Amino acid sequence: MLFLDTIAGKKSSQTPIWIMRQAGRYLQEYRDVRATTSDFISFCLTPDKACEVTLQPIRRYDFDAAIIFSDILIVPWALNRDVHFITGEGPKCTPLGSDEVIDHKLITDFSSKITAVAEAVRLTRASLPEKTALIGFAGAPWTLMTYMVEGGSSKDYAATRNWLWGYQKQTDYLLEILVETISQSLISQANAGANALMIFDSWASAVPSDLRPWIVERPVQAIIERVRQAGITLPFICFPRGISADLPRFADAVDCQVLAIDQGVSPVFAAKSIRADMVLQGNLDPQALLFGGDVMKRAVDQIQEAFLTRQHIFNLGHGITPPTPIDHVAELVDYIRR
Amino acid sequence: MLFLDTIAGKKSSQTPIWIMRQAGRYLQEYRDVRATTSDFISFCLTPDKACEVTLQPIRRYDFDAAIIFSDILIVPWALNRDVHFITGEGPKCTPLGSDEVIDHKLITDFSSKITAVAEAVRLTRASLPEKTALIGFAGAPWTLMTYMVEGGSSKDYAATRNWLWGYQKQTDYLLEILVETISQSLISQANAGANALMIFDSWASAVPSDLRPWIVERPVQAIIERVRQAGITLPFICFPRGISADLPRFADAVDCQVLAIDQGVSPVFAAKSIRADMVLQGNLDPQALLFGGDVMKRAVDQIQEAFLTRQHIFNLGHGITPPTPIDHVAELVDYIRR
Repeated sequence: MLFLDTIAGKKSSQTPIWIMRQAGRYLQEYRDVRATTSDFISFCLTPDKACEVTLQPIRRYDFDAAIIFSDILIVPWALNRDVHFITGEGPKCTPLGSDEVIDHKLITDFSSKITAVAEAVRLTRASLPEKTALIGFAGAPWTLMTYMVEGGSSKDYAATRNWLWGYQKQTDYLLEILVETISQSLISQANAGANALMIFDSWASAVPSDLRPWIVERPVQAIIERVRQAGITLPFICFPRGISADLPRFADAVDCQVLAIDQGVSPVFAAKSIRADMVLQGNLDPQALLFGGDVMKRAVDQIQEAFLTRQHIFNLGHGITPPTPIDHVAELVDYIRR
Repeated sequence: MLFLDTIAGKKSSQTPIWIMRQAGRYLQEYRDVRATTSDFISFCLTPDKACEVTLQPIRRYDFDAAIIFSDILIVPWALNRDVHFITGEGPKCTPLGSDEVIDHKLITDFSSKITAVAEAVRLTRASLPEKTALIGFAGAPWTLMTYMVEGGSSKDYAATRNWLWGYQKQTDYLLEILVETISQSLISQANAGANALMIFDSWASAVPSDLRPWIVERPVQAIIERVRQAGITLPFICFPRGISADLPRFADAVDCQVLAIDQGVSPVFAAKSIRADMVLQGNLDPQALLFGGDVMKRAVDQIQEAFLTRQHIFNLGHGITPPTPIDHVAELVDYIRR
């Protein structure tokens, strides 16, 4: 597998490519399957549908990796938070109060609620070409905490940041529950056949820099250690989105093999400043794919040039967006494989 | 003035302090004056009211600098965009289409529409204690462009980022108009008695790193050059919020004297990586002020320790928020001046 070989440090004339949210709304075939289940959580937890939409972009573009179709909010949902998706508004749930304590016993029920994700991984691994890696994933503790505390997405995560300043014990308690359950989720995906595990910390940028060792780095490292203790040796991809100048410190504190880079980070800075054995993944602006053509190709050139001396997995800096023309994705893949 | 002396490189045992949005809704006396005018733009453009609310936090806390009460959207408003403020929703205007051309002749009308801002500066400078600096300000071209193109604030600025990939000529044209009018606004504030000029690029983080020289750095530098050509030698404070690892590059490209740092940037990184003659301003998380006390003081210690070897102006990493207890602001000021 080019994807795993690249992570293992093998040199190749080819750069592996996959795209965040590659199984998604920009594909008509995805929208067709998605239309067969109204509730989004139910859709994620129907293994044959999750498997089918995971395979769709592989059939169309032959990406070097598939990522299991699921959602980071499956974990809070399995912790009995009332997560639901409202079309056009995104995810919602009842905000968690700082005086509310999540019952630690919920964790004993947790694993039974997420078996469908592992089953989808099993089905997908059995159907994928051998050369295509399958990535399992979860949200990072901080990012899941923001949804649980805010009750959805937010502009500035003020309520969750309040916990960091005013409710440190509650923060530690909630993070510990999330570390435990996220680890369980990743272990079950690994045991079902995933070839790599990714942790999305989509809102890491909202944590003040001085608090990131506590809130971003240590909880993610704790997850990796628990997964390793379960005998799993798969590579980890971490995506602490938006932390920019703190990426080198994150790389030193967290024992992952791949660091995903958003488009807000200069590839030149990343290549120069992050420890040399870290594989870097990214970081084309998804909006560049809306137009394609020479402007996009020049941006790709700039990224590839910066990563010439590094092990590099090509990807966007964030998820592909629904209005992206499918031809531009083909154009990008062809250009990377030229 | 401690504030200007610090910028000029003079050493002092005191760190100057002011707070972004210090004239604002957390103060009862602000809310009282604000309630006398329903329309927000009209409120900004009433010189005696703008002057009064600018002075309020100086009376209460004796900050080392005042910042004229105004809004960055006065510039698009003066370019005849239909900017209006809806309570609870923030600013709105009709989104600018990529095929719409702003009439360049509007610029000739522009200066007459912003005379009230200069008048407020004049009144305020005359009323301020001599030792208190007065800061004039404007939004940066990119940040104003996002409001004009999105029609308000946005989660990801996708429409404006589209311009960067698909409408480069229109982008250059719009940025040039904004450079011209922002420069006019800053020149008029300088001539009215401002002691320093600040440029807020609140959404600089949304520009892909590789495009920041074009979109963030050069337009801001062009403004500074035009203001200098008008014979104005005041210090410039730039706040390219969220660019983190790109701050050193910004500092090398832009001839400003002070760089404001948001709380997403490690003070250790900033102190180490940004050119040594740059004064640094920041960067306590505004949420820390909601709780005050020892947790806040430890965070202040960490910031001050990192900036020990640098010229430093204490500030928050973003604007103070309405629910902040006024006693905590006093506690912060006392602690900085201990």
